[in-house]
Amino acid sequence: MPAPEAPGERLHRQLAFIDEVDRLKRVLRRNVVSDRSRRENSAEHSWHLALMVLCLAEHAAEPIELSRALGMALVHDLVEIDAGDTFVHASYDERDKLERERAAAERIFGLLPGDQARELRELWLDFERGQSPESKLVRMVDRLQPVLLHRATEGVVWHAHAVRRSQVERRVGEIEHAAPALWPVVQQILAEAVARGQLKDE
Amino acid sequence: MPAPEAPGERLHRQLAFIDEVDRLKRVLRRNVVSDRSRRENSAEHSWHLALMVLCLAEHAAEPIELSRALGMALVHDLVEIDAGDTFVHASYDERDKLERERAAAERIFGLLPGDQARELRELWLDFERGQSPESKLVRMVDRLQPVLLHRATEGVVWHAHAVRRSQVERRVGEIEHAAPALWPVVQQILAEAVARGQLKDE
Repeated sequence: MPAPEAPGERLHRQLAFIDEVDRLKRVLRRNVVSDRSRRENSAEHSWHLALMVLCLAEHAAEPIELSRALGMALVHDLVEIDAGDTFVHASYDERDKLERERAAAERIFGLLPGDQARELRELWLDFERGQSPESKLVRMVDRLQPVLLHRATEGVVWHAHAVRRSQVERRVGEIEHAAPALWPVVQQILAEAVARGQLKDE
Repeated sequence: MPAPEAPGERLHRQLAFIDEVDRLKRVLRRNVVSDRSRRENSAEHSWHLALMVLCLAEHAAEPIELSRALGMALVHDLVEIDAGDTFVHASYDERDKLERERAAAERIFGLLPGDQARELRELWLDFERGQSPESKLVRMVDRLQPVLLHRATEGVVWHAHAVRRSQVERRVGEIEHAAPALWPVVQQILAEAVARGQLKDE
Protein backbone atom coordinates (compact mmCIF):
# COMPACT_ATOMS: atom_id res chain seq x y z
CA MET A 1 0.00 0.00 0.00
CA PRO A 2 1.57 3.33 -0.98
CA ALA A 3 2.27 5.84 1.79
CA PRO A 4 -0.44 8.55 2.08
CA GLU A 5 0.75 11.84 0.56
CA ALA A 6 1.61 14.85 2.72
CA PRO A 7 -1.29 17.38 3.12
CA GLY A 8 0.37 19.92 0.81
CA GLU A 9 1.00 17.24 -1.81
CA ARG A 10 -2.66 16.20 -1.67
CA LEU A 11 -3.90 19.73 -2.36
CA HIS A 12 -1.26 20.18 -5.05
CA ARG A 13 -2.58 17.11 -6.88
CA GLN A 14 -6.19 18.27 -6.59
CA LEU A 15 -5.30 21.64 -8.09
CA ALA A 16 -3.30 20.01 -10.90
CA PHE A 17 -6.42 18.01 -11.82
CA ILE A 18 -8.61 21.13 -11.67
CA ASP A 19 -6.17 22.95 -13.98
CA GLU A 20 -6.03 20.02 -16.40
CA VAL A 21 -9.78 19.51 -16.82
CA ASP A 22 -10.12 23.06 -18.20
CA ARG A 23 -9.17 21.43 -21.50
CA LEU A 24 -12.62 19.81 -21.75
CA LYS A 25 -13.87 23.31 -22.68
CA ARG A 26 -11.95 22.87 -25.96
CA VAL A 27 -13.37 19.48 -26.95
CA LEU A 28 -16.03 20.19 -29.55
CA ARG A 29 -19.12 18.07 -30.14
CA ARG A 30 -21.00 17.85 -33.42
CA ASN A 31 -24.07 19.54 -31.95
CA VAL A 32 -24.53 23.28 -32.04
CA VAL A 33 -25.74 25.52 -29.20
CA SER A 34 -29.31 26.77 -29.37
CA ASP A 35 -28.66 29.93 -31.46
CA ARG A 36 -26.55 27.78 -33.87
CA SER A 37 -23.67 30.27 -33.56
CA ARG A 38 -21.08 27.59 -32.79
CA ARG A 39 -20.52 23.95 -31.85
CA GLU A 40 -21.15 22.86 -28.28
CA ASN A 41 -18.18 21.83 -26.16
CA SER A 42 -18.10 18.88 -23.79
CA ALA A 43 -17.68 20.97 -20.60
CA GLU A 44 -20.86 22.99 -21.10
CA HIS A 45 -22.62 19.82 -22.30
CA SER A 46 -21.65 18.16 -18.98
CA TRP A 47 -23.05 21.15 -17.07
CA HIS A 48 -26.31 20.86 -19.00
CA LEU A 49 -26.54 17.14 -18.18
CA ALA A 50 -25.96 17.70 -14.47
CA LEU A 51 -28.68 20.35 -14.39
CA MET A 52 -31.00 17.93 -16.23
CA VAL A 53 -30.28 15.28 -13.59
CA LEU A 54 -31.33 17.81 -10.95
CA CYS A 55 -34.63 18.56 -12.76
CA LEU A 56 -35.53 15.11 -14.08
CA ALA A 57 -34.36 12.72 -11.33
CA GLU A 58 -37.99 12.15 -10.29
CA HIS A 59 -38.64 10.41 -13.63
CA ALA A 60 -35.95 7.77 -13.08
CA ALA A 61 -37.36 4.23 -13.07
CA GLU A 62 -35.35 3.36 -9.92
CA PRO A 63 -34.43 5.38 -6.82
CA ILE A 64 -31.07 7.13 -7.19
CA GLU A 65 -28.47 8.78 -4.98
CA LEU A 66 -28.48 12.35 -6.26
CA SER A 67 -24.91 13.37 -5.40
CA ARG A 68 -23.59 10.25 -7.16
CA ALA A 69 -25.62 10.96 -10.31
CA LEU A 70 -24.49 14.61 -10.34
CA GLY A 71 -20.84 13.63 -9.92
CA MET A 72 -21.19 11.11 -12.74
CA ALA A 73 -22.63 13.73 -15.12
CA LEU A 74 -19.71 16.04 -14.27
CA VAL A 75 -16.98 13.48 -15.03
CA HIS A 76 -18.60 11.30 -17.71
CA ASP A 77 -16.85 13.01 -20.65
CA LEU A 78 -13.45 13.85 -19.10
CA VAL A 79 -11.71 11.07 -21.05
CA GLU A 80 -12.43 13.08 -24.21
CA ILE A 81 -9.60 15.44 -23.22
CA ASP A 82 -7.23 12.76 -24.55
CA ALA A 83 -9.53 10.53 -26.60
CA GLY A 84 -11.65 13.20 -28.36
CA ASP A 85 -15.39 13.21 -28.90
CA THR A 86 -16.79 10.45 -31.12
CA PHE A 87 -19.83 11.43 -33.17
CA VAL A 88 -22.46 8.85 -32.31
CA HIS A 89 -23.67 8.50 -35.87
CA ALA A 90 -20.21 8.06 -37.40
CA SER A 91 -18.71 4.62 -37.93
CA TYR A 92 -15.74 3.93 -35.66
CA ASP A 93 -13.75 1.06 -34.16
CA GLU A 94 -15.43 0.36 -30.81
CA ARG A 95 -12.45 -1.51 -29.34
CA ASP A 96 -10.03 1.23 -30.35
CA LYS A 97 -12.32 3.85 -28.78
CA LEU A 98 -12.52 1.90 -25.51
CA GLU A 99 -8.76 1.49 -25.30
CA ARG A 100 -8.11 5.16 -25.89
CA GLU A 101 -10.68 6.08 -23.26
CA ARG A 102 -9.27 3.68 -20.67
CA ALA A 103 -5.77 5.11 -21.12
CA ALA A 104 -7.22 8.63 -20.85
CA ALA A 105 -9.02 7.73 -17.61
CA GLU A 106 -5.77 6.39 -16.13
CA ARG A 107 -3.88 9.56 -16.93
CA ILE A 108 -6.51 12.20 -16.12
CA PHE A 109 -8.07 10.76 -12.96
CA GLY A 110 -4.55 9.66 -11.96
CA LEU A 111 -3.62 13.31 -11.44
CA LEU A 112 -5.76 13.24 -8.26
CA PRO A 113 -4.75 11.78 -4.89
CA GLY A 114 -5.15 7.97 -4.94
CA ASP A 115 -8.51 7.70 -3.15
CA GLN A 116 -10.15 10.38 -5.28
CA ALA A 117 -8.60 9.00 -8.47
CA ARG A 118 -10.19 5.62 -7.73
CA GLU A 119 -13.53 7.17 -6.78
CA LEU A 120 -13.89 9.31 -9.90
CA ARG A 121 -12.58 6.65 -12.26
CA GLU A 122 -15.14 4.28 -10.74
CA LEU A 123 -17.90 6.84 -11.41
CA TRP A 124 -16.82 7.04 -15.05
CA LEU A 125 -16.66 3.22 -15.40
CA ASP A 126 -20.10 2.95 -13.81
CA PHE A 127 -21.41 5.38 -16.45
CA GLU A 128 -19.82 3.35 -19.25
CA ARG A 129 -21.29 0.08 -17.96
CA GLY A 130 -24.77 1.53 -17.50
CA GLN A 131 -25.91 -0.97 -14.86
CA SER A 132 -26.48 1.15 -11.72
CA PRO A 133 -29.62 3.29 -11.22
CA GLU A 134 -27.50 6.45 -11.34
CA SER A 135 -25.80 5.46 -14.59
CA LYS A 136 -29.16 4.67 -16.20
CA LEU A 137 -30.39 8.17 -15.31
CA VAL A 138 -27.22 9.95 -16.51
CA ARG A 139 -27.15 7.92 -19.74
CA MET A 140 -30.81 8.79 -20.25
CA VAL A 141 -30.16 12.55 -20.02
CA ASP A 142 -27.02 12.13 -22.16
CA ARG A 143 -29.27 10.67 -24.89
CA LEU A 144 -32.06 13.20 -24.34
CA GLN A 145 -30.02 16.42 -24.29
CA PRO A 146 -28.92 16.25 -27.96
CA VAL A 147 -32.49 15.43 -29.03
CA LEU A 148 -33.73 18.57 -27.27
CA LEU A 149 -30.93 20.60 -28.89
CA HIS A 150 -31.77 19.17 -32.31
CA ARG A 151 -35.38 20.23 -31.79
CA ALA A 152 -34.32 23.73 -30.70
CA THR A 153 -32.07 24.10 -33.77
CA GLU A 154 -34.54 22.63 -36.26
CA GLY A 155 -32.41 19.56 -36.83
CA VAL A 156 -29.62 21.35 -38.73
CA VAL A 157 -27.00 18.84 -37.59
CA TRP A 158 -29.16 15.79 -38.34
CA HIS A 159 -29.86 17.24 -41.77
CA ALA A 160 -26.20 18.10 -42.48
CA HIS A 161 -25.11 14.52 -41.68
CA ALA A 162 -28.13 12.87 -43.38
CA VAL A 163 -28.96 11.08 -40.13
CA ARG A 164 -31.74 8.46 -40.26
CA ARG A 165 -34.53 8.10 -37.72
CA SER A 166 -33.53 4.48 -37.08
CA GLN A 167 -30.01 5.59 -36.10
CA VAL A 168 -31.37 8.03 -33.54
CA GLU A 169 -33.85 5.48 -32.23
CA ARG A 170 -31.07 2.98 -31.61
CA ARG A 171 -29.09 5.64 -29.80
CA VAL A 172 -31.92 6.90 -27.58
CA GLY A 173 -33.68 3.56 -27.02
CA GLU A 174 -32.40 3.35 -23.42
CA ILE A 175 -34.67 6.26 -22.49
CA GLU A 176 -37.78 4.07 -22.69
CA HIS A 177 -36.79 1.91 -19.71
CA ALA A 178 -34.72 4.48 -17.79
CA ALA A 179 -37.50 7.10 -17.74
CA PRO A 180 -40.76 5.83 -19.27
CA ALA A 181 -42.51 9.22 -18.90
CA LEU A 182 -40.02 10.79 -21.32
CA TRP A 183 -40.34 8.23 -24.09
CA PRO A 184 -43.51 9.64 -25.72
CA VAL A 185 -41.88 13.08 -25.81
CA VAL A 186 -38.83 11.70 -27.61
CA GLN A 187 -41.03 9.79 -30.07
CA GLN A 188 -42.99 12.94 -30.82
CA ILE A 189 -39.83 15.00 -31.41
CA LEU A 190 -38.52 12.38 -33.87
CA ALA A 191 -41.85 12.14 -35.69
CA GLU A 192 -41.97 15.92 -36.11
CA ALA A 193 -38.35 16.01 -37.33
CA VAL A 194 -39.20 13.41 -39.97
CA ALA A 195 -42.36 15.30 -40.99
CA ARG A 196 -40.27 18.47 -41.45
CA GLY A 197 -37.58 16.71 -43.49
CA GLN A 198 -34.90 17.24 -40.81
CA LEU A 199 -34.45 13.52 -40.18
CA LYS A 200 -34.47 10.85 -42.90
CA ASP A 201 -37.05 8.10 -42.69
CA GLU A 202 -36.50 4.76 -44.44
CA MET B 1 -52.76 27.18 -2.97
CA PRO B 2 -52.57 26.63 -6.74
CA ALA B 3 -53.78 23.32 -8.13
CA PRO B 4 -50.92 20.88 -8.88
CA GLU B 5 -50.22 20.66 -12.61
CA ALA B 6 -51.13 17.59 -14.65
CA PRO B 7 -48.23 15.10 -15.13
CA GLY B 8 -47.73 16.06 -18.80
CA GLU B 9 -47.73 19.75 -17.88
CA ARG B 10 -45.08 19.14 -15.22
CA LEU B 11 -42.71 17.46 -17.69
CA HIS B 12 -43.44 20.14 -20.29
CA ARG B 13 -42.33 22.85 -17.84
CA GLN B 14 -39.18 20.96 -16.90
CA LEU B 15 -38.20 20.62 -20.57
CA ALA B 16 -38.94 24.31 -21.22
CA PHE B 17 -36.51 25.20 -18.43
CA ILE B 18 -33.88 22.80 -19.80
CA ASP B 19 -34.24 24.39 -23.26
CA GLU B 20 -34.00 27.91 -21.86
CA VAL B 21 -30.86 27.43 -19.77
CA ASP B 22 -28.89 26.55 -22.91
CA ARG B 23 -28.52 30.34 -23.23
CA LEU B 24 -26.03 30.39 -20.34
CA LYS B 25 -23.54 28.93 -22.85
CA ARG B 26 -23.64 32.32 -24.59
CA VAL B 27 -22.97 34.50 -21.54
CA LEU B 28 -19.28 35.44 -21.73
CA ARG B 29 -17.07 36.14 -18.73
CA ARG B 30 -13.96 38.34 -18.81
CA ASN B 31 -11.69 35.39 -18.12
CA VAL B 32 -10.19 33.32 -20.91
CA VAL B 33 -9.93 29.54 -21.09
CA SER B 34 -6.53 27.97 -20.42
CA ASP B 35 -5.16 28.17 -23.99
CA ARG B 36 -6.34 31.84 -24.17
CA SER B 37 -8.15 31.10 -27.45
CA ARG B 38 -11.43 32.66 -26.29
CA ARG B 39 -13.39 33.99 -23.33
CA GLU B 40 -14.91 31.53 -20.91
CA ASN B 41 -18.70 31.23 -20.79
CA SER B 42 -20.78 30.93 -17.64
CA ALA B 43 -22.08 27.41 -18.39
CA GLU B 44 -18.63 25.81 -18.64
CA HIS B 45 -17.51 27.93 -15.65
CA SER B 46 -20.41 26.44 -13.64
CA TRP B 47 -19.32 22.94 -14.67
CA HIS B 48 -15.78 23.70 -13.52
CA LEU B 49 -17.07 24.94 -10.14
CA ALA B 50 -19.20 21.86 -9.57
CA LEU B 51 -16.24 19.60 -10.34
CA MET B 52 -14.12 21.67 -7.91
CA VAL B 53 -16.78 21.18 -5.23
CA LEU B 54 -16.45 17.43 -5.80
CA CYS B 55 -12.65 17.53 -5.42
CA LEU B 56 -12.24 20.16 -2.70
CA ALA B 57 -15.23 19.57 -0.39
CA GLU B 58 -12.92 17.99 2.20
CA HIS B 59 -11.26 21.40 2.73
CA ALA B 60 -14.52 23.15 3.72
CA ALA B 61 -14.36 24.58 7.24
CA GLU B 62 -17.82 23.12 8.06
CA PRO B 63 -19.52 19.83 7.09
CA ILE B 64 -21.59 20.17 3.93
CA GLU B 65 -24.34 18.29 2.13
CA LEU B 66 -22.67 17.40 -1.18
CA SER B 67 -25.75 17.22 -3.43
CA ARG B 68 -26.87 20.65 -2.21
CA ALA B 69 -23.46 22.20 -2.90
CA LEU B 70 -23.32 20.61 -6.37
CA GLY B 71 -26.82 21.86 -7.22
CA MET B 72 -25.87 25.33 -6.05
CA ALA B 73 -22.77 25.42 -8.27
CA LEU B 74 -24.92 24.36 -11.24
CA VAL B 75 -27.55 27.11 -10.80
CA HIS B 76 -25.52 29.95 -9.21
CA ASP B 77 -25.04 31.91 -12.46
CA LEU B 78 -28.35 31.18 -14.25
CA VAL B 79 -29.63 34.72 -13.57
CA GLU B 80 -26.92 35.97 -15.94
CA ILE B 81 -29.05 34.74 -18.85
CA ASP B 82 -31.13 37.91 -18.34
CA ALA B 83 -28.88 40.05 -16.16
CA GLY B 84 -25.52 39.42 -17.87
CA ASP B 85 -22.17 38.79 -16.24
CA THR B 86 -20.72 41.62 -14.15
CA PHE B 87 -16.93 41.86 -14.16
CA VAL B 88 -15.93 41.78 -10.50
CA HIS B 89 -13.28 44.47 -10.87
CA ALA B 90 -15.51 46.92 -12.76
CA SER B 91 -17.48 49.61 -10.95
CA TYR B 92 -21.23 49.00 -11.05
CA ASP B 93 -24.43 49.88 -9.20
CA GLU B 94 -24.88 47.08 -6.67
CA ARG B 95 -28.59 47.77 -6.08
CA ASP B 96 -29.33 47.81 -9.81
CA LYS B 97 -27.44 44.52 -10.24
CA LEU B 98 -29.44 42.89 -7.43
CA GLU B 99 -32.76 44.02 -8.85
CA ARG B 100 -31.94 42.72 -12.32
CA GLU B 101 -30.84 39.40 -10.88
CA ARG B 102 -33.96 39.02 -8.73
CA ALA B 103 -36.21 39.63 -11.75
CA ALA B 104 -34.15 37.14 -13.74
CA ALA B 105 -34.50 34.50 -11.02
CA GLU B 106 -38.28 34.98 -11.00
CA ARG B 107 -38.53 34.48 -14.74
CA ILE B 108 -36.00 31.69 -15.27
CA PHE B 109 -36.68 29.48 -12.24
CA GLY B 110 -40.40 30.29 -12.75
CA LEU B 111 -40.36 28.18 -15.91
CA LEU B 112 -40.16 25.08 -13.69
CA PRO B 113 -43.05 23.44 -11.82
CA GLY B 114 -43.80 25.40 -8.62
CA ASP B 115 -41.99 23.15 -6.12
CA GLN B 116 -38.81 22.94 -8.22
CA ALA B 117 -38.92 26.67 -8.99
CA ARG B 118 -38.96 27.41 -5.26
CA GLU B 119 -36.23 24.88 -4.52
CA LEU B 120 -33.79 26.12 -7.17
CA ARG B 121 -34.48 29.81 -6.50
CA GLU B 122 -33.79 29.10 -2.82
CA LEU B 123 -30.47 27.48 -3.76
CA TRP B 124 -29.53 30.61 -5.72
CA LEU B 125 -30.58 32.93 -2.88
CA ASP B 126 -28.60 30.83 -0.44
CA PHE B 127 -25.53 31.26 -2.66
CA GLU B 128 -26.06 35.03 -2.81
CA ARG B 129 -26.42 35.31 0.98
CA GLY B 130 -23.36 33.16 1.68
CA GLN B 131 -24.45 32.05 5.16
CA SER B 132 -24.88 28.27 4.86
CA PRO B 133 -21.93 25.84 4.88
CA GLU B 134 -22.72 24.86 1.25
CA SER B 135 -22.80 28.48 0.07
CA LYS B 136 -19.47 29.21 1.77
CA LEU B 137 -17.89 26.29 -0.10
CA VAL B 138 -19.41 27.22 -3.49
CA ARG B 139 -18.46 30.89 -3.05
CA MET B 140 -14.95 29.77 -2.15
CA VAL B 141 -14.53 27.80 -5.38
CA ASP B 142 -16.19 30.64 -7.33
CA ARG B 143 -13.40 32.94 -6.02
CA LEU B 144 -10.65 30.36 -6.48
CA GLN B 145 -11.44 29.20 -10.03
CA PRO B 146 -10.60 32.54 -11.72
CA VAL B 147 -7.37 32.81 -9.70
CA LEU B 148 -6.30 29.37 -10.99
CA LEU B 149 -7.23 30.39 -14.54
CA HIS B 150 -5.28 33.65 -14.21
CA ARG B 151 -2.26 31.63 -13.09
CA ALA B 152 -2.67 29.22 -16.02
CA THR B 153 -2.92 32.11 -18.49
CA GLU B 154 -0.07 34.18 -17.00
CA GLY B 155 -2.43 36.88 -15.77
CA VAL B 156 -3.29 38.24 -19.25
CA VAL B 157 -6.74 39.40 -18.11
CA TRP B 158 -5.47 40.98 -14.88
CA HIS B 159 -2.80 42.77 -16.91
CA ALA B 160 -5.22 43.94 -19.64
CA HIS B 161 -7.53 45.49 -17.04
CA ALA B 162 -4.70 46.84 -14.84
CA VAL B 163 -6.12 44.96 -11.86
CA ARG B 164 -4.51 45.66 -8.47
CA ARG B 165 -3.57 43.02 -5.92
CA SER B 166 -5.76 44.73 -3.29
CA GLN B 167 -8.82 44.35 -5.55
CA VAL B 168 -8.22 40.62 -5.95
CA GLU B 169 -7.55 40.22 -2.22
CA ARG B 170 -10.89 41.86 -1.36
CA ARG B 171 -12.61 39.56 -3.83
CA VAL B 172 -11.01 36.33 -2.65
CA GLY B 173 -10.81 37.14 1.06
CA GLU B 174 -13.66 34.74 1.87
CA ILE B 175 -11.42 31.80 0.97
CA GLU B 176 -9.39 32.23 4.18
CA HIS B 177 -12.27 31.27 6.47
CA ALA B 178 -14.17 28.98 4.09
CA ALA B 179 -11.16 26.74 3.36
CA PRO B 180 -8.08 27.71 5.43
CA ALA B 181 -5.84 25.12 3.72
CA LEU B 182 -6.27 26.93 0.39
CA TRP B 183 -5.40 30.41 1.61
CA PRO B 184 -1.58 30.05 1.47
CA VAL B 185 -1.89 28.76 -2.12
CA VAL B 186 -3.91 31.82 -3.13
CA GLN B 187 -1.47 34.18 -1.40
CA GLN B 188 1.42 32.54 -3.23
CA ILE B 189 -0.29 32.83 -6.62
CA LEU B 190 -0.93 36.55 -6.04
CA ALA B 191 2.62 37.18 -4.86
CA GLU B 192 4.03 35.47 -7.96
CA ALA B 193 1.68 37.43 -10.23
CA VAL B 194 2.92 40.69 -8.66
CA ALA B 195 6.55 39.60 -9.00
CA ARG B 196 5.98 38.89 -12.70
CA GLY B 197 4.26 42.22 -13.33
CA GLN B 198 0.88 40.55 -14.12
CA LEU B 199 -0.88 42.15 -11.15
CA LYS B 200 -0.30 45.70 -9.96
CA ASP B 201 0.95 46.26 -6.42
CA GLU B 202 0.39 49.61 -4.66
